[in-house]
Amino acid sequence: MSLARSAPDVVRSAYAQLAVTDLPKSRWFWVDLLGFHVQYEDATSLYLRGTDELTHHSLVLRQGPLAALEHLAYRVRTPLDVDRAEKFFTELGLPVCRVPAGQGTRGVGDAVRVVDPLGFPVEFFHEIDRAERLIQRYDLHRGAQVARLDHFNICTADIPAAYAHYTSLGFGCSETIEGDEHELYAAWMYRKQTVHDVAFTGGAGPRLHHLGLATHESHQVLRTADILGALHEERYIERGPGRHGVSNAFYLYLRDPDGHRVEIYTSDYYTGDPDHETYRWNVHDDRRRDFWGNAVIESWYKEATPVLDLDGRQQPTIDANLDESAVHVGADGLG
Amino acid sequence: MSLARSAPDVVRSAYAQLAVTDLPKSRWFWVDLLGFHVQYEDATSLYLRGTDELTHHSLVLRQGPLAALEHLAYRVRTPLDVDRAEKFFTELGLPVCRVPAGQGTRGVGDAVRVVDPLGFPVEFFHEIDRAERLIQRYDLHRGAQVARLDHFNICTADIPAAYAHYTSLGFGCSETIEGDEHELYAAWMYRKQTVHDVAFTGGAGPRLHHLGLATHESHQVLRTADILGALHEERYIERGPGRHGVSNAFYLYLRDPDGHRVEIYTSDYYTGDPDHETYRWNVHDDRRRDFWGNAVIESWYKEATPVLDLDGRQQPTIDANLDESAVHVGADGLG
Amino acid sequence: MSLARSAPDVVRSAYAQLAVTDLPKSRWFWVDLLGFHVQYEDATSLYLRGTDELTHHSLVLRQGPLAALEHLAYRVRTPLDVDRAEKFFTELGLPVCRVPAGQGTRGVGDAVRVVDPLGFPVEFFHEIDRAERLIQRYDLHRGAQVARLDHFNICTADIPAAYAHYTSLGFGCSETIEGDEHELYAAWMYRKQTVHDVAFTGGAGPRLHHLGLATHESHQVLRTADILGALHEERYIERGPGRHGVSNAFYLYLRDPDGHRVEIYTSDYYTGDPDHETYRWNVHDDRRRDFWGNAVIESWYKEATPVLDLDGRQQPTIDANLDESAVHVGADGLG
Amino acid sequence: MSLARSAPDVVRSAYAQLAVTDLPKSRWFWVDLLGFHVQYEDATSLYLRGTDELTHHSLVLRQGPLAALEHLAYRVRTPLDVDRAEKFFTELGLPVCRVPAGQGTRGVGDAVRVVDPLGFPVEFFHEIDRAERLIQRYDLHRGAQVARLDHFNICTADIPAAYAHYTSLGFGCSETIEGDEHELYAAWMYRKQTVHDVAFTGGAGPRLHHLGLATHESHQVLRTADILGALHEERYIERGPGRHGVSNAFYLYLRDPDGHRVEIYTSDYYTGDPDHETYRWNVHDDRRRDFWGNAVIESWYKEATPVLDLDGRQQPTIDANLDESAVHVGADGLG
Repeated sequence: MSLARSAPDVVRSAYAQLAVTDLPKSRWFWVDLLGFHVQYEDATSLYLRGTDELTHHSLVLRQGPLAALEHLAYRVRTPLDVDRAEKFFTELGLPVCRVPAGQGTRGVGDAVRVVDPLGFPVEFFHEIDRAERLIQRYDLHRGAQVARLDHFNICTADIPAAYAHYTSLGFGCSETIEGDEHELYAAWMYRKQTVHDVAFTGGAGPRLHHLGLATHESHQVLRTADILGALHEERYIERGPGRHGVSNAFYLYLRDPDGHRVEIYTSDYYTGDPDHETYRWNVHDDRRRDFWGNAVIESWYKEATPVLDLDGRQQPTIDANLDESAVHVGADGLG
Repeated sequence: MSLARSAPDVVRSAYAQLAVTDLPKSRWFWVDLLGFHVQYEDATSLYLRGTDELTHHSLVLRQGPLAALEHLAYRVRTPLDVDRAEKFFTELGLPVCRVPAGQGTRGVGDAVRVVDPLGFPVEFFHEIDRAERLIQRYDLHRGAQVARLDHFNICTADIPAAYAHYTSLGFGCSETIEGDEHELYAAWMYRKQTVHDVAFTGGAGPRLHHLGLATHESHQVLRTADILGALHEERYIERGPGRHGVSNAFYLYLRDPDGHRVEIYTSDYYTGDPDHETYRWNVHDDRRRDFWGNAVIESWYKEATPVLDLDGRQQPTIDANLDESAVHVGADGLG
Repeated sequence: MSLARSAPDVVRSAYAQLAVTDLPKSRWFWVDLLGFHVQYEDATSLYLRGTDELTHHSLVLRQGPLAALEHLAYRVRTPLDVDRAEKFFTELGLPVCRVPAGQGTRGVGDAVRVVDPLGFPVEFFHEIDRAERLIQRYDLHRGAQVARLDHFNICTADIPAAYAHYTSLGFGCSETIEGDEHELYAAWMYRKQTVHDVAFTGGAGPRLHHLGLATHESHQVLRTADILGALHEERYIERGPGRHGVSNAFYLYLRDPDGHRVEIYTSDYYTGDPDHETYRWNVHDDRRRDFWGNAVIESWYKEATPVLDLDGRQQPTIDANLDESAVHVGADGLG
Repeated sequence: MSLARSAPDVVRSAYAQLAVTDLPKSRWFWVDLLGFHVQYEDATSLYLRGTDELTHHSLVLRQGPLAALEHLAYRVRTPLDVDRAEKFFTELGLPVCRVPAGQGTRGVGDAVRVVDPLGFPVEFFHEIDRAERLIQRYDLHRGAQVARLDHFNICTADIPAAYAHYTSLGFGCSETIEGDEHELYAAWMYRKQTVHDVAFTGGAGPRLHHLGLATHESHQVLRTADILGALHEERYIERGPGRHGVSNAFYLYLRDPDGHRVEIYTSDYYTGDPDHETYRWNVHDDRRRDFWGNAVIESWYKEATPVLDLDGRQQPTIDANLDESAVHVGADGLG
């Protein structure tokens, strides 16, 4: 993989930091229901990780006035790659902010935060505290038994620009949704050897579409929905369960108490070979979004989480030109 | 259990006989996809059973000019109960026809066929040929790996009348859907020790809503949908997968090449205790039809299979007064 | 099914009452690990039921000086069948004791307790308190997520006598293990429509071999073992997981803190047809005890729980003539 | 990851080439039972791949006079890495053989074959033909539904030497089994982001212990065993199913018709972080080999496949000093 000279060597999508408006309610959702392990908590924040994760957190929830994405974070291979990230985004003329260890997110070392070309607040870091191994602590696994953060899915008005930006960061592309003239409706891009670390959904952006969380088997996805039904809280279920055409994963979409969307996701495939080819779905194939042809829910296409800038103010959004949800195919689309 | 004096002692829902318009296509659907075992076949008929079934068939498909239900069949406890059935329906003044062994459905002994008070063609029989045990022939299990027929679901315009008729035949009632004044929207009734042998869906009737087929585990239900997606035949999937509120079963609804509806169904509960109580769902609980609150598909409420009379002519239907699909609850209902 | 005139109409195996020597440790095992719901508890007893059970309990644990079976209990169809049971065992010249409601086991109405011809303390009752429906309370399902008591397995020195006794009580026989001359090594007998309510293992008796508890799917069986490994309490696992040849169920055998054996059991088949045939395994088929040919553990054949008489004294045991564990077949047997 | 200067950049364990003595019997085992897809076959060879594999093969079976390992093969990142491999092993003074495209294994480009310091025949290649994507061809998935080759497990007399060699090739170490003085009994090493591409079992070597094949979920592992039981071919099952302590995978060990061992393996964890730490098991923890404490089968420790040299002659073996199977722990060990 040949990277542009100054691009940082990204290892994987590492964590997301979300502002939530009612922390105890969020704790119920993410800890009790989804089964995240609480690595640290205080009156205004929660640091969470899945059962397979060996670093300090993959999700930070902070009490705030507005439900929003504070930042996405990627882990890079070496401390030097943090410097590379700083230089890379500075040269692009974008807002960049160095965050020394101890001044940023708990557990994370020296970091740099930027607003990327798509308008997203993104952190790059190398150092992060280790955490006790819980992989085999089955006695502690609860609810959805979430194993690890798998990916970010972001809304952006300009999918080709998103694709170009992440390509410049050295990401490979596993799958796309394309029109008849190969106009790009969506793309799935990876650094680690799975289908994606980040994917792009067309729509007003920058907004966070969802966080993807991996479980080991499909019965854990079903159990998540069953618990919500049991509690008569089935309104937290937005879409699914179903099988994605793209990625082949079995999915369930939930909305947390603030409306942040989360995907419980299981079973994609290996992408680590150097010549791994992009698999291209035509936007008229109604299996692309649901392999079984079930219709997509309108809110799933239309709603998303606002994002903040480096000073904590809400970023304005730009509308998209190309609207996948307007493509009417079988049961799918909202045309 | 106190039965009306002349009621036959019904053991269970035993088989359905369907007319199909393209037998080879039906064979693909029921045998290759669902995994039914072919017990007998000739140019115009297929006799099928699930992997756990020890009698000759639980489904008969016959080539015919019109896709329709020829009859439902219940097994009764003794040969004498066939006589009881004859007397029971004769006394009700309904069409009754004795079918000696060898003149009716292959594999079935002496039987009686009636048009029941709801307008359905129904057979009662005791004797049926045994078949080789395939329960542990995992090497032969294919596709959905259907284990056995579980139940019939029928559309009728008058749910209380259906309830009264099956009560008079000694059926227990496991669950209902009821309005605020206990008006009956739907009921699930059983003789064997599961949630049902027969259930009633409100709507124009007599029509067959679906056949319910049991599998052992939920992954077999998911695989059925996956195979259809793989073949780009996802249009055969009508609804689901999902968890029913009523019955607690995990379900997937398919339509066969003629539009006959089939439910792949797994995991309900034991109902064999003598004082087993009816569990009553309010029609405004959006979990009754899908425990996860997913909307019901319109065709699922509206479409069904016509039924024939004892002479093979299509029965006319009567419209329902009470329409569950008009009750708008959350995502559910079609109001 | 023709019953001897005075035989009570047994509905199903209903509950077991065990003496345990350390109630808090037993509570950890049966409640925290296996997921039984506590219906009632006090300083010296625990009344437990599975998630699908609608009656007061299926297991009673009582603090006692000796780990033992106090009694097995069968539910009968009507109050009259309690009288029939009293008469049936009295006529056999066996110890019989009437236990009026309120004087016996909590939640159970009028009952009769007997020592049966095999030396087992057995209760027959009809009335039992109802309990809140937890079938769909997925939020409360824990550990093994045990759904219901499925069966008793008892050790007896004389299998043909056990078979004859339960036949006289109207039980059907689903499966047997037999020698080349049809000498009976083991049998599985039922009243409800599953493979068994009671089974017999050859060996010194009367002793309780195990209680069989049903779960819905195989992943719940695996999770039970995983939790024990996680706690480094894997010594509670005695045998399995595996697939039984007999019954076709997926199994895991545990020993509770007192050594009482419990089987986590999933997925057998329907036996409710009036002419259901016995399936006969030859003792030389090494798949009979484990369908995958894995060897049986010696303790599984040799160890079992002592039983008490109606006065709470330990019953003496008689050794068996025929020893299945001495039949050496492939990996199986202990010859 | 800092590599020794001349080490090739290995991507992953890529394929194994085995000599088998009865190709039709092997075809039944690997294709019909395990579900490998046949990419190419002729009278004396079979080229196979799993459902998720996008390259020409991950297993080659060739008819031969002796059941043996012909070679293991690793894919390297670039064509230049093939040259690096040649130089690396030449500098070590080991047998090295360049195999131009078209002269070696079908589908594979320019390659180099070596005998490594442990005595194993190993191929390094970069180019390999692509193959049609079958990931979502659920209609073609059969038997065990094997998704992909996961790892090689090799027997060697000198575990520290094996560890040192693979470390020099840039492999990370996910887990070990160690004695009280940290003497190394076994190690699991990786290049791709899973628990391993290669592992070492102490014993006479060089021999191939097993090939590890990944499936997506545990029910597919159980189905494999069920099919063997159904065919009364349960003798092909050697050990399991069980949960490994090491790797946390759910496993089943089979022996093919020639005795080549194969592991059906599902669900380990991500190891791609740059500072991923080795997890060390003490040899006295009886959960290391089976997390549930089930005993290891003697043949599993003792038997393995002989390996050939570059001229196709059987390599002699050297006995091990340290014998893990002699460590008696609980049910484990064979002491």
